[in-house]
Order: sequence, then structure tokens, then C-alpha cells
Amino acid sequence: MPAPPVGVVGLGQLGGSLAAALVAAGRPVQGWDVDPAARDAAAARGVQITRELSGVVVLAVPLTAMAGALDGLTIDPDATVTDLGSVKRPVLESVGRTLGGRYVGGHPMCGTERSGHAAVDPGLFTGARWALCLEPDTELPRWLRVAEVAMAAGAEVVPVTATEHDDAVAAISHVSHLLAAALAAAAAQAGPLALALAAGSFRDGTRVIGSDPAFVRAMVEGNAGPTASALARVHQQLARPWAELVADGHAVVTRQGGRRTVRVPLDRAALLSLGRAGGAVTHRLAAFVEGWVPEDRAPEDRLPDRA
Amino acid sequence: MPAPPVGVVGLGQLGGSLAAALVAAGRPVQGWDVDPAARDAAAARGVQITRELSGVVVLAVPLTAMAGALDGLTIDPDATVTDLGSVKRPVLESVGRTLGGRYVGGHPMCGTERSGHAAVDPGLFTGARWALCLEPDTELPRWLRVAEVAMAAGAEVVPVTATEHDDAVAAISHVSHLLAAALAAAAAQAGPLALALAAGSFRDGTRVIGSDPAFVRAMVEGNAGPTASALARVHQQLARPWAELVADGHAVVTRQGGRRTVRVPLDRAALLSLGRAGGAVTHRLAAFVEGWVPEDRAPEDRLPDRA
Repeated sequence: MPAPPVGVVGLGQLGGSLAAALVAAGRPVQGWDVDPAARDAAAARGVQITRELSGVVVLAVPLTAMAGALDGLTIDPDATVTDLGSVKRPVLESVGRTLGGRYVGGHPMCGTERSGHAAVDPGLFTGARWALCLEPDTELPRWLRVAEVAMAAGAEVVPVTATEHDDAVAAISHVSHLLAAALAAAAAQAGPLALALAAGSFRDGTRVIGSDPAFVRAMVEGNAGPTASALARVHQQLARPWAELVADGHAVVTRQGGRRTVRVPLDRAALLSLGRAGGAVTHRLAAFVEGWVPEDRAPEDRLPDRA
Repeated sequence: MPAPPVGVVGLGQLGGSLAAALVAAGRPVQGWDVDPAARDAAAARGVQITRELSGVVVLAVPLTAMAGALDGLTIDPDATVTDLGSVKRPVLESVGRTLGGRYVGGHPMCGTERSGHAAVDPGLFTGARWALCLEPDTELPRWLRVAEVAMAAGAEVVPVTATEHDDAVAAISHVSHLLAAALAAAAAQAGPLALALAAGSFRDGTRVIGSDPAFVRAMVEGNAGPTASALARVHQQLARPWAELVADGHAVVTRQGGRRTVRVPLDRAALLSLGRAGGAVTHRLAAFVEGWVPEDRAPEDRLPDRA
């Protein structure tokens, strides 16, 4: 069976980059954007501009626009719909409720503080992790179809549930945005001398809050519970003796770990187990997928048994 | 009067880079390091290796080694001694107590998470701010001599007191290190899936804790009071409604401000006033220095009157 076409709704940084990467990989790509300039830029990269989409339809619009993303478009009744939103439970409860088993939530862990079609980069997904939701009622063949799109764009697929995803990204992304904002705002409170002396550590620590505030707000408010829990863990860490905290933080960021290749059956529990172990899927083969787990986490030729 | 020689004690990343920048600027540079490899690397860049130092002597050693940095060296009795340590009150109380008016505390706001003589970069100071302490008993001619060394290396000089400096760097640097450590340690607590999904915002937000933990620990523990106060401000910020926090943090990092050139008399109060306004000294002229303040902070041709 040939690969189904991919229809990308929203041709800004993420959607436009995905469309460009898939065109480069030889996949037929359709697309639509409410902005004519974004449509023209995508058409120039080989995307067929149309309001009639089929195959795998990718919603690459801001979280606040997700529920209405398909308004005015004609979608094939058998199409599989996925999205690139940075929070998964709210999209599962809105788009997912309408589409049922045809919806597979996704979130590529890339993008920069830039946005819009001028920031399109066909290499954006190369080597990135792409979280892809496997809920109890997700149809596995549709999940695999979306996984193949992500892998065709150069990403590695991390099987997760929406709940696991939202907890994880609260810890590594949403809290990062709040810490960056607090660091910047507290430095401004300290006065102009402090801001004048700001250098590398301040620039790195605040960079992510240069992102569009409406986007950041939709993300943290759309994932309020997990973000509050993750922030509570950060507060606990900050209450520890500084010497211990510094040593532990240093160990986390300098950890070097190998990868062990594993084969995973086409089975929800096994796939989710791979994701929980910190691994990812890199290839689809006939009756299984191939992927990897961190070397220190799985005994040879076995998947971790924590599913 | 020709520029006095500069003697650099410690030829690692900061000291070696300073020596190399000054050699490139045509200043005679002497230097010493306990590590023969660092001495050889500096000698190859044109530094005269000697244990007998005069002129402006720069202590470019870790905070923990500062008190004994001059052991085994012969220093001209009229030499002016400065340092590059990231905390200023403890050095003022140790080295400064011994040397009195001959000591001028300094802190260039640069350096990376790398260290050692292999990380030497003669361009490290170009455009960087260099805090330089003006205490009540600092001899202004010695302060100007050190300021000229900093400017010869490409930096802009921010006049501060040790107390102002330590408060300011707690806000923009020391707290950044603790937040980075807490973000990393809390993400590890969240589990392998969270770390597997970590991408740009986590990488930026934790980068600085890749630095040598002994260095980070000496810095935050050596500036414990101001760092605790700055951390309390961060906690206050994190308790605000997220929408406000995100908007304020975004405004701080995206603020664009022009510079207004000012002339500042050779006077402690006027120089400190420039620093408090967020400005810096860029040139020394005969009877005054030239510098700048942020455009929104000083009325034309006047210094801010908050000294």
C-alpha cells in the first residue's frame, strides 16, 4: 500500500516545516492556511494548496485555534487526524471527542522562539522526539500511519498517553517557561544595574520567554494541573541544601548514556512501556517496530517490564 | 605615562583570555599559573612567564584559591591588585583587607560553562560588561588603571560597590544557576519519559548547570545572603498569576533600548550613579570618562541623580 497523502492545516513554523520535510522525503503533501502568504510560501516548496484533505491530516495551529481548525475544510471521512499541540489532554477532549478513534494526538519536541512561515526549516524535525498518543481506544493502524509521517520527517516517535505526555512536558517545558519569566521579572525588580550586568547565564535562562506570550499562556494554562505539580517539585528542589542541589542538577545535564536497539511488538502496552523507559521508535517493520531505550534502563533484548 | 604592565595570576579560561586580549592590544603582559601546561600555552601567545609581577596584577583564580593566589609570587609594593572573582564582598574582606587601597575588586561578566586554558578566547571580553568596585577607600587613580585594562581587553566598565555587585549578580547569575539545577533535578524526578522529551527550552534553561559544580557551589555559597534574597524574589514572581508573569517576563527579555552617550567626571559618586542607572564607561579621557546610559533612564546631558 502506498503511503497515504498528508494534509497540513496551518503552514507556520511547525506545519510549514513538516510539509517541507515531507515533500523532501517524497511524500505527497496537501496544505491549507488562513494566511495567503503562508499558502504561497508552502506552494513554492511543493505543497498542493487545497481545502480538501485526506490521508493523514495534521492540525498545525495554535492551541487556542485547535477546536475550529477544520472549519471550512473538507476532510475525507476515513482520514486520520493528528495535531502538533504542546498539550494533549485538552485536544483529546475537544478534537478527540468529535473524531473518536480517528484522532491520534501528537507533539513534536522542537520549534524555536520564532514562529510563522518565515521560520520554516525542513530540518526542524531531524533527530527530534515526537510524542504520539496511544489512548485505550486509539486504533493502532492509524497510530502507525501517523508515526510513519513523523519518522519520514526525521523524528523519533515516543509512545505516550495524553496524561503521561502532559505530566512530562510540564516538567521539561512548561515549567521552564515559568522559571524563565520569573528569572527575568525578578532581575528587573532588582534594578537597571542587575540587567546591565546580565550575561550568558541570564540570557540562556530567560531565552524561552522571548516566545509569543499568548502561546506560552495557552500552554501553561492549558496544562495547569501538571504544571503546578511540576512547579511544586522545583520549589522542593530549591529548598534543598545548595551543594546537593548543584551536584544533582549537574549530574542530570551531564549524564552520558548509550542506546540499546530493541524490537517492540505492535502492541499498545509494549509501545507505552518503551516510552516510559525513555526510549523511542525509529523504524516500522512488518510485524513490529524497531527503536531504542537508554542503555542503563533495559536488560539486553528485553523491554522494561514496567508497563 | 606609558600604560603599566599587566600581570595575570592564573592562565585558565578567564586569565588566559585576558592575557591574550591584552597582548593583542599591544600591552606588555606577564603571567603565572601553577599548571605548566597553562604557562606554556600563555607563553606561546606572547605572555612573559614570571613569578615577579608589577603594574596591574590580576588574580584570575577560583574563589576558593583567591586568598592564597599570591603565595610564592613577588609583587611590586606599588602594584595595583584586582581580581576576576564572581563574588566581591568575600574577596574585599580577604585580599582587600591585606592590600587596602591597592586592591580594586573586579568581575567581567563573561566566561562560559567551559574552563581551563584550552578554552582561552582573546575575544571573550569584547563588548562584555566588567563590574569594577569603587569602595569609599578605593584610590581613584588605581581604579582608572584597572578600568583601562578592562577597556583594553574590549570590555565596558560598570562602576559598582561590592555590595551592589553581589546583589546584582545574585539576581542575574547566581539564581540562574540554582534555577537551572532545580529544573534539571525536578525533571529527573519526573522520570525517564520526561528527560526523553526534553528539548530546546530544557536545554537552554539548564545549560549553565553544566559548569563545574565546585565553581557554582563556591559562587552561591560565597554570596549566600544576596542569593537567598534574589531567590525569594523569584518565588514571589512564581506565585503571581501566570498570565501576568509571562507578560512581564516577556517584556523584560524583549525590551529594546537605545544608549545615550554621557561624560562623567572622575568622581566616585558620579561614577557609581552611572552604574546604578544601568550604564557603563567606554573611554577614559583626560579629566573625565565617557560612557553611556540606557536611553530611557537619563535626561539629555545629565547623569541620573540617584547617587
